[in-house]
Amino acid sequence: MQLTNVREHNLGTVLNTLATSDSPLSRAGLAQATGLTKPTVSRLVDELLSAGFLLEHAPTRSAGAAGGRPSTPVSIAEASVVGLGASVSADHVAVNMIDLRRHVIASAETPLTRAPTPRDAVVLIADLAAQLLAETPHTRVSGICVSVPGRLTPDGRRIRSAPNLGWDDAPLAELLESAPGLEALDVSIENDARLVAETELVNRRGEGFVLVYGESGIGGAVVVDGDIQRGANGWAGEIGHLCLDVDGPQCRCGRRGCLEAYASYWAIAQQSMQAGSGYISEFFAALEGAEREAAIERIGSSLGLALAQVLNIVDLPTVVLGGYFRHLAADVAPLINAQLDRHALAAEAGDVRIETTTAAARPSLAGAALRAIQPVFDAPAEWIRRFGG
Amino acid sequence: MQLTNVREHNLGTVLNTLATSDSPLSRAGLAQATGLTKPTVSRLVDELLSAGFLLEHAPTRSAGAAGGRPSTPVSIAEASVVGLGASVSADHVAVNMIDLRRHVIASAETPLTRAPTPRDAVVLIADLAAQLLAETPHTRVSGICVSVPGRLTPDGRRIRSAPNLGWDDAPLAELLESAPGLEALDVSIENDARLVAETELVNRRGEGFVLVYGESGIGGAVVVDGDIQRGANGWAGEIGHLCLDVDGPQCRCGRRGCLEAYASYWAIAQQSMQAGSGYISEFFAALEGAEREAAIERIGSSLGLALAQVLNIVDLPTVVLGGYFRHLAADVAPLINAQLDRHALAAEAGDVRIETTTAAARPSLAGAALRAIQPVFDAPAEWIRRFGG
Repeated sequence: MQLTNVREHNLGTVLNTLATSDSPLSRAGLAQATGLTKPTVSRLVDELLSAGFLLEHAPTRSAGAAGGRPSTPVSIAEASVVGLGASVSADHVAVNMIDLRRHVIASAETPLTRAPTPRDAVVLIADLAAQLLAETPHTRVSGICVSVPGRLTPDGRRIRSAPNLGWDDAPLAELLESAPGLEALDVSIENDARLVAETELVNRRGEGFVLVYGESGIGGAVVVDGDIQRGANGWAGEIGHLCLDVDGPQCRCGRRGCLEAYASYWAIAQQSMQAGSGYISEFFAALEGAEREAAIERIGSSLGLALAQVLNIVDLPTVVLGGYFRHLAADVAPLINAQLDRHALAAEAGDVRIETTTAAARPSLAGAALRAIQPVFDAPAEWIRRFGG
Repeated sequence: MQLTNVREHNLGTVLNTLATSDSPLSRAGLAQATGLTKPTVSRLVDELLSAGFLLEHAPTRSAGAAGGRPSTPVSIAEASVVGLGASVSADHVAVNMIDLRRHVIASAETPLTRAPTPRDAVVLIADLAAQLLAETPHTRVSGICVSVPGRLTPDGRRIRSAPNLGWDDAPLAELLESAPGLEALDVSIENDARLVAETELVNRRGEGFVLVYGESGIGGAVVVDGDIQRGANGWAGEIGHLCLDVDGPQCRCGRRGCLEAYASYWAIAQQSMQAGSGYISEFFAALEGAEREAAIERIGSSLGLALAQVLNIVDLPTVVLGGYFRHLAADVAPLINAQLDRHALAAEAGDVRIETTTAAARPSLAGAALRAIQPVFDAPAEWIRRFGG
């Protein structure tokens, strides 16, 4: 490593150690936790303090160290630097703000009765971001990451296709970069299911699983030994458009018999008497009686068949259900298992585990925010410079 | 690394450098090629020479080095150490012998008119192996690896299921270890398609592709950045039992609508007037007229649909056709591409490349032999000891 890289790396280590610590740490404590020498830690802490990333607490004298020098614990300064996460969905646009402690310190959303256009989505995101930033006047922003239920172009700048938003080749990064209030920010975009998988990996480090995420559409991710598979175009894990029946119902993507044509919100709501104008999750929560049973049956059997195909190809031990599938998991799991018994080789080796996402609500939004703040941990010196510190 | 590991590693490096060199190398040449010091190389070469792994050639005096000491080139001693590869198929059992140059120096096979039982397969393998070893009297054998068109148990000792051989939970490793002439050998077993993928990777180092291998059944492998995906049970890439239609024809595995129920030798031969009693590859080569057209159509459209599912999950840029699919590739490729256009997201990013395996005939047998000799490169000192050198 070159010297500047060593410094970046060590600053990141100190910052990350403090971010994941439950309580303030002294320089000696940090040296112990990081394996760095105390002089090195002191120099790094001073740098982070003067940039305003850290906060110095009142000196304490450790028990039993009578006569020793008092130590001055430091911690991450709340809201000193934030990242913005955003998510675009068929039923809402949301923005949240995460600080270096990786705590969500503010969030706001706008419910929608129909999917937004790319331009509308960007206007809504910029408005929500401005609102959150106005409420947090002295902060500095590392960037914004936007979660979208669609497939990106390989350069990560455009949405190639998001059928459940009705988007087709939308220049989202460009639109975001020219939106009022966002011009100065680093902008990135990511597929929603991939961000859910990243959020999930915080609790499933190193694990292998297939994630299925039901929201505007049906997204997915294949995770092998803790690595989210990308694929040649970045589209690996697109379970929503697996063909279950070549003569099956028309999908919004233009193809026939896709999983989404059976088990997506859109497909289920079409068959329901209930108006589907509120939040997608509320729609599923409100289903009852015969309509709920029909939806469970349709989702469980189609999702099970699709998962059997996926498992025959990737042979992973666990399926993780997220989004609205999470709320239906107890009822759809037996139907999924029945389909796996029928069509998946893996069933010969014993039951595949059907689990649910462990993160809180809006895991794609949480994942977007984590992405937005991560660059500060990767290159703190670079950000101190950019913030004019 | 510990000292013994360093020695093993360096011995392996020297051995491998000589194995992949077109001509004998001097100690100085080996030092240059490996980056090891000349004294180290000399010591390692002496060790390999006294074990009989290498051969010393007549001293030569390099041009322009008048008056310099003559150098004595060394090369791998032909057939001094061999590995045995074997393959079990519905139409034949074959064994070959590979030496440290990774040249196949002998092979033999027994054609079959019906799939062998596990016991019969082992007897045939032992007979063929004995025949090859009798023809190469002064060799030492590192082990035998057997390729099987089926799924192994996680411990690699049994065949969980090989529907196209009619095998179900066969204790193949145990049978091999107690077969006359094989008792003293290290025995391993591997899925045929995985061995084909390994053979293919010699020419496709670091690449990503989906391999489909048509032989007794239809095997497959998913290769990401040169890594053959394993999966939780070692069954990743089992494209043959993807369900194309839940109401489709019965498969030999007991399920319905599997790719094998459409495009396997067994499924095609069932629909053919032509007797399917010879070699599988000859059956396809001999197909003509309307029967050939029907087979091409059936294989191309079912394989294309199955590959669309696979690509939606793993998003790889290339499909590699092996076995009898290789011989039909020119005719089935347009049908596969049409199905990918219809059902695979990847088609939106441009054409998926449809290629064929680059290895010679019997790539699974070649892969088995490579597996059988590899341990000698991994731990030469250990093998020198085992051979009593």
